[in-house]
Amino acid sequence: MLNQKANVHGGDIHCASKIYGIKKAEFLDYSANINPLGLPEDLRELLISNIDDLMNYPDPECMDLKADISSYLGVESDSIIIGNGASEIIFLLFDVLRPGKVLIPAPSFSEYSHAASSFGIEVEYFELRETEGFKLDIHRLIKHISDDINVIFLCNPNNPTSVLTSKEDLRYLLNYAKSKGIAVIIDEAFIELTLGANENSMMDDLRKYVNLFIIRAFTKLYAIPGLRLGYGVGNPDLIKKMWERKMPWSVNSFACGIGSVLSDKTGYLNRTALWLEEELKWFYNELMQLDGFKIFKPNTNFVLMKILNEKLNSGKLKDLMAAKGILIRDACNFNFLNDRFVRVAIKDRENNIKFLKTFKEIISEE
Amino acid sequence: MLNQKANVHGGDIHCASKIYGIKKAEFLDYSANINPLGLPEDLRELLISNIDDLMNYPDPECMDLKADISSYLGVESDSIIIGNGASEIIFLLFDVLRPGKVLIPAPSFSEYSHAASSFGIEVEYFELRETEGFKLDIHRLIKHISDDINVIFLCNPNNPTSVLTSKEDLRYLLNYAKSKGIAVIIDEAFIELTLGANENSMMDDLRKYVNLFIIRAFTKLYAIPGLRLGYGVGNPDLIKKMWERKMPWSVNSFACGIGSVLSDKTGYLNRTALWLEEELKWFYNELMQLDGFKIFKPNTNFVLMKILNEKLNSGKLKDLMAAKGILIRDACNFNFLNDRFVRVAIKDRENNIKFLKTFKEIISEE
Repeated sequence: MLNQKANVHGGDIHCASKIYGIKKAEFLDYSANINPLGLPEDLRELLISNIDDLMNYPDPECMDLKADISSYLGVESDSIIIGNGASEIIFLLFDVLRPGKVLIPAPSFSEYSHAASSFGIEVEYFELRETEGFKLDIHRLIKHISDDINVIFLCNPNNPTSVLTSKEDLRYLLNYAKSKGIAVIIDEAFIELTLGANENSMMDDLRKYVNLFIIRAFTKLYAIPGLRLGYGVGNPDLIKKMWERKMPWSVNSFACGIGSVLSDKTGYLNRTALWLEEELKWFYNELMQLDGFKIFKPNTNFVLMKILNEKLNSGKLKDLMAAKGILIRDACNFNFLNDRFVRVAIKDRENNIKFLKTFKEIISEE
Repeated sequence: MLNQKANVHGGDIHCASKIYGIKKAEFLDYSANINPLGLPEDLRELLISNIDDLMNYPDPECMDLKADISSYLGVESDSIIIGNGASEIIFLLFDVLRPGKVLIPAPSFSEYSHAASSFGIEVEYFELRETEGFKLDIHRLIKHISDDINVIFLCNPNNPTSVLTSKEDLRYLLNYAKSKGIAVIIDEAFIELTLGANENSMMDDLRKYVNLFIIRAFTKLYAIPGLRLGYGVGNPDLIKKMWERKMPWSVNSFACGIGSVLSDKTGYLNRTALWLEEELKWFYNELMQLDGFKIFKPNTNFVLMKILNEKLNSGKLKDLMAAKGILIRDACNFNFLNDRFVRVAIKDRENNIKFLKTFKEIISEE
């Protein structure tokens, strides 16, 4: 079971450490897509100064945190639900909505179908085509929607393809879905790590589309996957049902206490934007120079790559890189992908250079 | 909804702060039953030194933590499941077991029935009688078990009564339940805060009773309700199903990283035992001196009290104490209790003296 689970997602350095015999701290983790600027300093200080809060139960309503998110996004507090990572939001959504059938454009993050299946909800996949660069063709999607679909679940920008769908396209889908009574859930876990950040978000459309629900997380942007903090924004009726259904205190008090970081007094978001603008282009161009790979143009901090060299496959490439201390994501278990695909994070220049050096060494030996 | 939820449990200083206009840090919280020795120093240091772990996903299998618990309790790692507080363990149990009907001796912790109900599982209560000092009469319980009961869920020592059931009685129940194919779940959240601590636990009986499941938490003993760390110990088949059903990464990396505290290099457990032995007796004797109250003899770090003065009720007493900066638990919403009952924590001598002084002032004015 251990290995089976470990293969499901990227970012499992715990298992990797045991498998490859390398200490956790010595891995360079290109399998998890985390802001390489790392834990913001003001967030670190906040965590240390909040340690004594552990001696109280966390606020089950996360009132302060909701107020901070409300200010950050310009949405009402009663349209926000806080969760133990985006995972809890995904599970809660299916638990409350209990749709007969959900449509998921794929390849995409496997937790959507995992959560749906755990409630016995049928999942249908809509294939994003490699020939279309894995772009979401909204018109083809709409044609594909059968009468038994109650929910459409998509990720924007999408994981693992790094493709961003435009707001115009999403509005077109939302209008159609609204007319059919279909809920549209958009996981914007990486939206703040696109060029333009919140400008690419559908957050301002929430008032117009009662059928829209948006998932966010602190995870990627603030480099804190270990803290477990995600949230959802949607219509207050649904949000209320989710709060009622939620396990009490599922959000720990460290997580409850970091809302003030959203006000960004230290310019972390700006530094992130500058890094992203520079490195997204540079790293993509460097990858494009490699022989034997097809590179899909990234819109966020990771890149989907296709292995063209027939002697190599995703598992082998992962193993070879891991043996050199660099973890990458074998993308073979995403729907509609296979052992030709890997996903790699984009980090800071220094590490990206290390990555490229090791990567080139390995592929030159194959 | 906010107030409704706030009333369900003790320990909600966030809501209390808003209701009574007193800062969170200024409350003396006798409504939550937390070890008054507070966060152990070695645990505080561990948390600070582990902050950088936040930048990795938590270990979804909590392997290191399971190994530490395995050493601490002398049970196999594959019989342990880790959860986001005991709450996640309770929810997972019902989710996996899906019994037709569960029998809960009551009054008891309301999350058992909350979790059961959220899966549509029928709950039947077995009344613990005030006339019997709320002791669990095993023979009466067994007579009460109808054929449609699949699970018995109890808390030992029980919350809010502070009554400990003997191992002999529990073995008698387990033998009967085993013969009938009934699972017995024992929440030992407070067992390490009884005189004798783990000696009162049914942990060593797990090998003998395949129908026994034990719930534990770090919460009360280490004074870290904000961290969210509980666990369950049971037969490996059930444990495996629970791991498969569990949300990934629900246990944050701070929680995953504190297992070494169980080896107790600083003597925290011994200091806790010394405090408990002294204060349990002293505080009980002091409470027994009060006019107008019936005090139920406590076996762990809280006391159930009955108000005999007819001019007073639990809500009024709670409000009067809160206005003076001390929170107590209005126990009126526990099954089979009413507005005559309150529950108060036992803390260190200095605070217990403060509590008693304020309490006496208030009741003398009524």
